[in-house]
Amino acid sequence: MLRVYRGKPWLEDHHFERLSRSLDAIRIHGIDVARLRQRMHDTIAAGLFREATVYIQITRGAAPRSHVFPENATPLEFLFVKAFHDPYIVARQNGAAVLLQLDIRWDRCDIKSTNLLANVLAMQAAKEAGCVEAVLYLPDGTLTEGSHSSFFGVKDGVLRTAPNSNAILPGCTRRLGIKLAEAAGIPLHEQNLHRDDLGKVTELFLMGTTTEVLPVVKISGQTIGIGKPGPIARRLQEAYNKAVHGFLAVN
Amino acid sequence: MLRVYRGKPWLEDHHFERLSRSLDAIRIHGIDVARLRQRMHDTIAAGLFREATVYIQITRGAAPRSHVFPENATPLEFLFVKAFHDPYIVARQNGAAVLLQLDIRWDRCDIKSTNLLANVLAMQAAKEAGCVEAVLYLPDGTLTEGSHSSFFGVKDGVLRTAPNSNAILPGCTRRLGIKLAEAAGIPLHEQNLHRDDLGKVTELFLMGTTTEVLPVVKISGQTIGIGKPGPIARRLQEAYNKAVHGFLAVN
Repeated sequence: MLRVYRGKPWLEDHHFERLSRSLDAIRIHGIDVARLRQRMHDTIAAGLFREATVYIQITRGAAPRSHVFPENATPLEFLFVKAFHDPYIVARQNGAAVLLQLDIRWDRCDIKSTNLLANVLAMQAAKEAGCVEAVLYLPDGTLTEGSHSSFFGVKDGVLRTAPNSNAILPGCTRRLGIKLAEAAGIPLHEQNLHRDDLGKVTELFLMGTTTEVLPVVKISGQTIGIGKPGPIARRLQEAYNKAVHGFLAVN
Repeated sequence: MLRVYRGKPWLEDHHFERLSRSLDAIRIHGIDVARLRQRMHDTIAAGLFREATVYIQITRGAAPRSHVFPENATPLEFLFVKAFHDPYIVARQNGAAVLLQLDIRWDRCDIKSTNLLANVLAMQAAKEAGCVEAVLYLPDGTLTEGSHSSFFGVKDGVLRTAPNSNAILPGCTRRLGIKLAEAAGIPLHEQNLHRDDLGKVTELFLMGTTTEVLPVVKISGQTIGIGKPGPIARRLQEAYNKAVHGFLAVN
């Protein structure tokens, strides 16, 4: 899923890189990614989309049901563009609540696939608890990421987020966030936070394709800091918006 | 997936019990399972099927893409019956080879769902190694089950198979196998085998809907026992066939 700002797909290279990596990991071959990108651009243009999202899904192809790969199936591509009505405008301003949920996913969360049942169950629990996102933790208390966003926190004045590994999705917005933090001189460690850290963190926030930079002020009922978005989240929101504007100015 | 013998669905109660349990676990509500069973019977009869399989899949319903459950979607049911041409006749007689693969699945393998990417990747690796099935092991060496079958072994004269837990699917044929072993006076422990046991086991076999009782004589290149199906596998094959015949005699 990509975000489209004023008709321009955002972080396009990174999203398609990750798509290619995921296709390789599950061995779906023969996708013409350049053609797919062109079709995305054509679809955005044909629909006169401005603020929108693009969804792309590739399957191994149509074949009789079997655990074994089909011998001669042609992969199928599915792409749609949809107008985006930002549901996070107020939450980005005031901060949002999230719910902790046990991370029961498989060991290849670095692969972007539609096997999202664990994410779906966690997110539904979050929604029912009045939260915007579920934040996942491993049995040992290690915090990994959101059900559909990356997770950041500030502890001892240092910004922290889980390092890329098989335990998280290498988020495109996460990657941008790290670059923006570096450019802004914000100290950052790619290091997991732990549930035990939640009493000590001064800020938490999510980063994702539609969430952008979303401050978290409450996690499973526990208030973070003074219950308001913190200064680092604010600086990254500003840097994010500037990056988007800079991109639009030259595209 | 159910096996149909001579037009009669086999282990029907258990399969539909498990379907209901899986639906509950992922909170898909409102399925009329009795009507679904009737449709299965009607479809088998309408197609004059004798040796066949039934495949049933329920989704939460058609809705815009979101991690959150749709508010007003009607669950969709998909059912088909397909003639079954048994691919395991020779393997059941001579024994088969399987491939060990790391179990990277999620922590709710007791839920029967279509989130099977890990199973698919393991099974494909097995097929490419000339094997009929992948047998999965956890990082600590614990053997769990096959990618689409249950796993049994004989160690110190005792039949062993993984106990039901969130780490395995509660196989309907596994359950039958345990009952048949008990009825035949075969000592059985519901206890995981370990990779380190593979040098000591005298027999291995798989049990599943289409595999039935399938002796394993080689695992990742290592020959089991004397490389031939063992006496307990043979007794269970016979007991399985008798159970099917007994079922057909009264249905």
